[in-house]
Amino acid sequence: MSNPVFLALDIPRLEAGKALVDKVKAHIGGVKLGMEFFYAHGHHGVHEIAHCGLPVFLDLKLHDIPNTVAAAMQSIHVLEPAIVTVHASGGRAMMEDAKAAAGENTKVVGVTMLTSLDERDLERTGVDGSPHDHVMRLAELAENAGLDGIVCSGQEVGAVHKQWKQGFFVVPGLRPAGSASGDQKRVVTPRQARDDGASVLVIGRPISKADDPEQAARDIEATL
Amino acid sequence: MSNPVFLALDIPRLEAGKALVDKVKAHIGGVKLGMEFFYAHGHHGVHEIAHCGLPVFLDLKLHDIPNTVAAAMQSIHVLEPAIVTVHASGGRAMMEDAKAAAGENTKVVGVTMLTSLDERDLERTGVDGSPHDHVMRLAELAENAGLDGIVCSGQEVGAVHKQWKQGFFVVPGLRPAGSASGDQKRVVTPRQARDDGASVLVIGRPISKADDPEQAARDIEATL
Repeated sequence: MSNPVFLALDIPRLEAGKALVDKVKAHIGGVKLGMEFFYAHGHHGVHEIAHCGLPVFLDLKLHDIPNTVAAAMQSIHVLEPAIVTVHASGGRAMMEDAKAAAGENTKVVGVTMLTSLDERDLERTGVDGSPHDHVMRLAELAENAGLDGIVCSGQEVGAVHKQWKQGFFVVPGLRPAGSASGDQKRVVTPRQARDDGASVLVIGRPISKADDPEQAARDIEATL
Repeated sequence: MSNPVFLALDIPRLEAGKALVDKVKAHIGGVKLGMEFFYAHGHHGVHEIAHCGLPVFLDLKLHDIPNTVAAAMQSIHVLEPAIVTVHASGGRAMMEDAKAAAGENTKVVGVTMLTSLDERDLERTGVDGSPHDHVMRLAELAENAGLDGIVCSGQEVGAVHKQWKQGFFVVPGLRPAGSASGDQKRVVTPRQARDDGASVLVIGRPISKADDPEQAARDIEATL
């Protein structure tokens, strides 16, 4: 995968999403489809986007009992996603069942801590320790459960990469130098994250909301 | 809602699901569709099941950053689900945004602790205290975030109902007296849960895997 950038396609309308992908596909490495897209357009929408020829990342963040997550993975198996996310806080058994049910070409990646949460939020949901502690703890649990890697913020990827040498790390909430942080509380540049060991760089609004999305994608690609 | 029983339709094939619902619809109060069903059949599948005339509960357990969860709720808004689940551990802001994006006839219910987890699992994911403490903590967070209620096991519903008098409580993992517990570690009978304050009783295999599903649904209805 030459270009590690996956475009976060958080656009409700299918045609607008396809048009954007067509514009930037020469300067990205894949497309990430989240709940908004998949809940609206289902298999049909994924097939339409996959026509662009790039790998598709289904960022559905599955988090349910083991049986249900395994069955849900089978429901999307036919779409042959390159990457699927599950919540590491769903526990070891859930992660093991998710990986066992995934296609052999599908990387299953554990969500550790949503980039929109901070220490105060963690505490309120009963988790002790710092965000860093929490990410490292869930990273270890995900590795032991046989997942391919984790999602973590740019702040954590360096430390996790040291702990999990073969891990596949997806880093969202990336912002090129000088752009707005939106609802992400902890942000880093694409280049920094890649240098710290990120495998996939998830970028959304800095491309999708740019005046010239193709130029924005080209500029980011040039920094890598 | 006279009959509080929602059938958990965890069946991958749409036609088989529709056939089962037709068989038992006179003896249940609604149908619960989870990730397995929705990831396979999307909006079309939900419409097909909704033809039976019963309320539909989309148990998708949304757990992402606030913007994404709000957008995902809008993607399913047109389906007019009676109930949707989100993970309370996603934090207050995520729950507030989910409720704000939901239709006015949609109850948004917080998942507290998966019934497939126990204290050891919680500890490994960084949560201190007992399962009971965790459920009560997340119930308070969900109530403060303006959700309609929570999902909790039959063991907890009595205590939560005391703490949250107006709460809407969904209790899964219920087993009529004498049936197998499957992957649910903490189970109670439908009657006991209803008496302890449950608003919705989620029942799956004891009906769907019964030799005579209609009789099984009728028998459960008779105990309520």
